Amino acid sequence: MKFVTAQDHIGTFVGVMHQDDTKVLPLKRMEKTLKGTSSLPDTMIDCISMGEAFYNKVVELTNLSKNEEFYIPNDDVKLLAPILRPAKNIFCVGKNYAEHAIEMGSADDIPEHVMVFTKAPTAVIGPNEQILNHAEVTNQLDYEGELAVIIGKRGIGIKREEALDFVFGYTIINDITARDLQSKHKQFFIGKSLDTTCPMGPWIVHTSSIKNPNQLNIETRVNKEVRQQSNTEHFIFPIEEVIEVLSKGMTLEPGDIIATGTPAGVGKGFKPPRFLNAGDLIEIEIESIGTLSNQISK
Amino acid sequence: MKFVTAQDHIGTFVGVMHQDDTKVLPLKRMEKTLKGTSSLPDTMIDCISMGEAFYNKVVELTNLSKNEEFYIPNDDVKLLAPILRPAKNIFCVGKNYAEHAIEMGSADDIPEHVMVFTKAPTAVIGPNEQILNHAEVTNQLDYEGELAVIIGKRGIGIKREEALDFVFGYTIINDITARDLQSKHKQFFIGKSLDTTCPMGPWIVHTSSIKNPNQLNIETRVNKEVRQQSNTEHFIFPIEEVIEVLSKGMTLEPGDIIATGTPAGVGKGFKPPRFLNAGDLIEIEIESIGTLSNQISK
Repeated sequence: MKFVTAQDHIGTFVGVMHQDDTKVLPLKRMEKTLKGTSSLPDTMIDCISMGEAFYNKVVELTNLSKNEEFYIPNDDVKLLAPILRPAKNIFCVGKNYAEHAIEMGSADDIPEHVMVFTKAPTAVIGPNEQILNHAEVTNQLDYEGELAVIIGKRGIGIKREEALDFVFGYTIINDITARDLQSKHKQFFIGKSLDTTCPMGPWIVHTSSIKNPNQLNIETRVNKEVRQQSNTEHFIFPIEEVIEVLSKGMTLEPGDIIATGTPAGVGKGFKPPRFLNAGDLIEIEIESIGTLSNQISK
Repeated sequence: MKFVTAQDHIGTFVGVMHQDDTKVLPLKRMEKTLKGTSSLPDTMIDCISMGEAFYNKVVELTNLSKNEEFYIPNDDVKLLAPILRPAKNIFCVGKNYAEHAIEMGSADDIPEHVMVFTKAPTAVIGPNEQILNHAEVTNQLDYEGELAVIIGKRGIGIKREEALDFVFGYTIINDITARDLQSKHKQFFIGKSLDTTCPMGPWIVHTSSIKNPNQLNIETRVNKEVRQQSNTEHFIFPIEEVIEVLSKGMTLEPGDIIATGTPAGVGKGFKPPRFLNAGDLIEIEIESIGTLSNQISK
């Protein structure tokens, strides 16, 4: 099941993709039409916060025999970031693939403990939206393809054995980074939080559709050239451990987003570096999820 | 003018303190009673987002001759964090006083450029609320008294000359830090974001009441013993510069909170270090603002 936040001529809505990915079912609108009323909230975070009741409701709605008429063809909707406005910064795991840690410095940079920084929620954009080139503040814009975890329920002190029970689903994040600002300001936040530098989507794949999130192929292409190609089996800290460490003393909430780190092959890792240029198209493809595409503004 | 978020037997409300600090005016409740209706929103962030209209409305309401009867004595209200739930992480400037940078390492640690990390909004608590000792995850809990800036209007690319026009007011933050986690996880976020480690308040003092935010005495006491004593004139990066740097390519929004860094005298700076213990009372007093008091749980 693929959950989207989308927009058509009537408004913004939470929906699910049809199995063939060609059309979108606007959940609340459908339920209102069929039943005259709907208890579904308007935002993805509020839907996720309903817990299992949300998933069950969606299964019920998609199973209704007459639902076909409610689907909207992809051409008539714009997919937005599935979580349009996160309720806090996006958690990001730094250097979670050994080869990436090495390309950013040396083997000494492979972390012994989970490293977490954040990206401002104002940085979020959706699939196919434009990443501003920010030419006035950086000339070292770089891509980072990442699997992102969407937390499904509130928890603190979560043990790794139960960690995946707290996951609602998975999406893709391009952790666009201004490398010059990242190194100039030491702590990563500033270099990670320019407006439009957190493309997310195209949808959230429900956890029930992902057998093992720690074993997914991931590939990033710039203008169709493969730059990153790895598998999440190379995580230094698997998702369960990241959730355990993050939730030690800190409450995780429904709709929280954890970007799990990027594999080797970022622009900065090349000699000489290959930073992004105006007009570049970045595509991130993750197995069982899909492809997130965004272009740098000209 | 001192703005509060407070709670009484009727509910949570945005209010202003009486000039003598002994009672609180619940703004929306008063307007509703007087006029039968009120356009004031329910949260501090939404009030701040109204811009000047909010301040003007409050001046109007506090000037009404019959307002005395609407004030609630302090004993009958509980002051909460003035921004109960920030809409994103709190921005924190690292090492913004040279003497603190030195006590944390050496003169080499005095930053050349603004350093920014964040604290999770789940960490926020109000004045007099208890800071959890988190004995299971840290044994190096430390205090950091800080002046905090509350952004009043949306802006990007803000120049330092106009930066203070974007400020709604000022409050106090205790940037409680788990030093062991801070150094273990490299990036500061994890050591800065345990639940209850962002006490804030007791109120927001409107910008019109602060002549120069870069010249305020600041003092932190632990169990009545003075530990930090400085003045914001010792900022390495004054507030105007912090806003300019943060807003380069990143949009600031009403209700955003910037903790401006802590002076020398933190527990880690002592030899041997003097970390916080269960039951310790921490008071942070800033000139023209007030005192924020919180105790560590036993």
